[in-house]
Amino acid sequence: MDVLQVLNLGEFAQIFSKMGMFPVFDLAYYIVSILYLKYEPGSVEVSRRSPVASWLCAMLYCFGSYILADIMLGSSPIDYFQHNSHILLASAVWYLIFYCPLNLFYKCVALLPIKLVLVALKEVVRTRKIAAGVHHAHHAYHHGFFIMVIVGYVKGSGVALISNFEQLLRGVWRPDTNEILNMSFPTKASLYGAILFTMQEAHWLPVSKPVLILAFTLFMATSKVVMTARHSHGSPFALIESWICHFLFGSPVGGSEEDHHAAAAAPSSPLKTKEELSEGTRKRKAKKAE
Amino acid sequence: MDVLQVLNLGEFAQIFSKMGMFPVFDLAYYIVSILYLKYEPGSVEVSRRSPVASWLCAMLYCFGSYILADIMLGSSPIDYFQHNSHILLASAVWYLIFYCPLNLFYKCVALLPIKLVLVALKEVVRTRKIAAGVHHAHHAYHHGFFIMVIVGYVKGSGVALISNFEQLLRGVWRPDTNEILNMSFPTKASLYGAILFTMQEAHWLPVSKPVLILAFTLFMATSKVVMTARHSHGSPFALIESWICHFLFGSPVGGSEEDHHAAAAAPSSPLKTKEELSEGTRKRKAKKAE
Amino acid sequence: MDVLQVLNLGEFAQIFSKMGMFPVFDLAYYIVSILYLKYEPGSVEVSRRSPVASWLCAMLYCFGSYILADIMLGSSPIDYFQHNSHILLASAVWYLIFYCPLNLFYKCVALLPIKLVLVALKEVVRTRKIAAGVHHAHHAYHHGFFIMVIVGYVKGSGVALISNFEQLLRGVWRPDTNEILNMSFPTKASLYGAILFTMQEAHWLPVSKPVLILAFTLFMATSKVVMTARHSHGSPFALIESWICHFLFGSPVGGSEEDHHAAAAAPSSPLKTKEELSEGTRKRKAKKAE
Repeated sequence: MDVLQVLNLGEFAQIFSKMGMFPVFDLAYYIVSILYLKYEPGSVEVSRRSPVASWLCAMLYCFGSYILADIMLGSSPIDYFQHNSHILLASAVWYLIFYCPLNLFYKCVALLPIKLVLVALKEVVRTRKIAAGVHHAHHAYHHGFFIMVIVGYVKGSGVALISNFEQLLRGVWRPDTNEILNMSFPTKASLYGAILFTMQEAHWLPVSKPVLILAFTLFMATSKVVMTARHSHGSPFALIESWICHFLFGSPVGGSEEDHHAAAAAPSSPLKTKEELSEGTRKRKAKKAE
Repeated sequence: MDVLQVLNLGEFAQIFSKMGMFPVFDLAYYIVSILYLKYEPGSVEVSRRSPVASWLCAMLYCFGSYILADIMLGSSPIDYFQHNSHILLASAVWYLIFYCPLNLFYKCVALLPIKLVLVALKEVVRTRKIAAGVHHAHHAYHHGFFIMVIVGYVKGSGVALISNFEQLLRGVWRPDTNEILNMSFPTKASLYGAILFTMQEAHWLPVSKPVLILAFTLFMATSKVVMTARHSHGSPFALIESWICHFLFGSPVGGSEEDHHAAAAAPSSPLKTKEELSEGTRKRKAKKAE
Repeated sequence: MDVLQVLNLGEFAQIFSKMGMFPVFDLAYYIVSILYLKYEPGSVEVSRRSPVASWLCAMLYCFGSYILADIMLGSSPIDYFQHNSHILLASAVWYLIFYCPLNLFYKCVALLPIKLVLVALKEVVRTRKIAAGVHHAHHAYHHGFFIMVIVGYVKGSGVALISNFEQLLRGVWRPDTNEILNMSFPTKASLYGAILFTMQEAHWLPVSKPVLILAFTLFMATSKVVMTARHSHGSPFALIESWICHFLFGSPVGGSEEDHHAAAAAPSSPLKTKEELSEGTRKRKAKKAE
């Protein structure tokens, strides 16, 4: 009975890890990403003033992970732009979110139940990207474990890692903080995911890749859905991280509820990174900007 | 008779599109580009303090389009620097414009009649660069229409697109504006040109490439010569753009005379991009700096 | 007798230029580089708040020259990260310098006699990097003399050239100065070294490469050891540079003791580049930060 279950799980994981992402999952990824762009203060104004800058930002939000991974591996940064259908789909989403009459499309996808589904689908894509990034780097550098982790990391984090420069494109410059100094939950999870997938690729983990993909996807989707539903930004890693950082790096132990990174960062930077802002605040800002 | 005319035009376009750019046209390109660098406030002081920084800026002004296109296609960004004669010629121009005794060279090339000729020649080079960029990208990505447009665009716009970082090299930082947010006429024209040449390359336009090169060169040269002569920065696209942006992107319709982008940008950024400053202001600033 | 001496010198230079850099010399390079990172104001605080950002900065300090040279030649910027042992060694040094209990490791390597030895060893590595960079570029571009100089230059200067962006990673932004505008001694020496090695590669210098490596290493090691021991930042090139710049570029002749670049820069930027700060000031700052 138990063996059968494992077999079924393995088979299901196999099918799940082979499932095509285009167009359903990718569409969800584009919608959620560009939704986050619209939440950014000033982005609606930019979309009126300079559609080209707004479109470029949207492309960075949707394809930043591919751009960064291509840069890291020395390929053309716009290599992914050869997939015209993906670009057109993302451009259509950008147009609908920013310029749809009566703001209908935005209002639909920003409804909490719909958004929760989209957020879950987005995490499926993110996990697959991390796995693909690590695999790609493994192909190019057989024993380059650091390279695998870095490429998987940038594939998972995407535009967040270059948010300073994405903001600069919109005329905003906040040098006192960045995604490495104050990591949000998805960025951290991408780092840990990239480490896990690298260990799997190096055969240091006793699990197959499809099972790891399935497990990591479930963890990410659950975490993000819960966080989005509760408008919270507390990281599930906070407690473990706090202790590990205290022992390894002598960081002060964080408060019981607060992520220690956020706590340490609070006095020096009042600006929160975009994924740390509660959903409520964001929506209010986006509404006001219109 | 009519057929003959067309044949002759076709032949002339063919010859024009095969004409070598080095050294005459390239020389004009370098002179006008470095002239614009000298107009930048503070650049003369930098040339006294740090000749290396000044030389690097001059190279960015002259070869920024090649650097950006090489980055976009994943090649070495300094690949073009293997053409020693081009680099030496541009360096000679840089030296003469910044350090010539009595400022003789600068005074000669900044004379309006001479400058108008040089500006026209520069536009010949720009058009050829856009066509070459689109063709090069087409060679690498047969159906990558977005890549073709992007590469053609950066080949036409050159240093303007990275002006924030070029300024940073000179110790100047203006994050509140950039060439994408407030496109100047040459940048916009390069974008439209890149789209046209991409459509030609994809056989969606019923014209041959030589004819398109000839027509676009004539349009660019005429526009820039008129704008330089009248010290104006009104774009010939303003009216059409204003209406298209209003219908597509809900932008407010611009005033009758003003470019709508410039109008929308005016209140938020008092800093005009370099090619939007009237020639008179620039010269006064350059003179004062000496 | 004289011929014998020359033979011996040639043989010694040959052996010296073939000597492996890993692990002894590289270790010294990593220690001195990360020591300079710890001297940077705010870096100790960053190491507590965000170990990932601190580690990334340390990697930039240790491998910035490889990253930049790979970018310049169009390879993967993290190509060097395939050498796991080098990365692990540098990471261990980073950990010991920033997190060693009682700050023991830092106190040991910062002792003047030990530091002088390490500084000398670091210059051995720097010279070898310049020579390797020029050789590598020569291999890719046989007559690309400018490319050779640029690659040798970035190989010698490393992180200094991108210090603005390295600082940005730590949340610091100083746009009013950079390493090109205010070149420190090692950056200048790297430029001159790159020019010398390019001339050697092009057979314009009547010396063999091993002899040039030996001579340049001796010059660099002596200069840096003397400068570190005397806590000075006066450049040995100051006088010659001052006159050449005066004749070629019309720069004002500097004071007798002062480097003209530093002199010209002083009024406009009170921020000194990191290698120009006297050792004493740095140590005091680093101590205060703990």
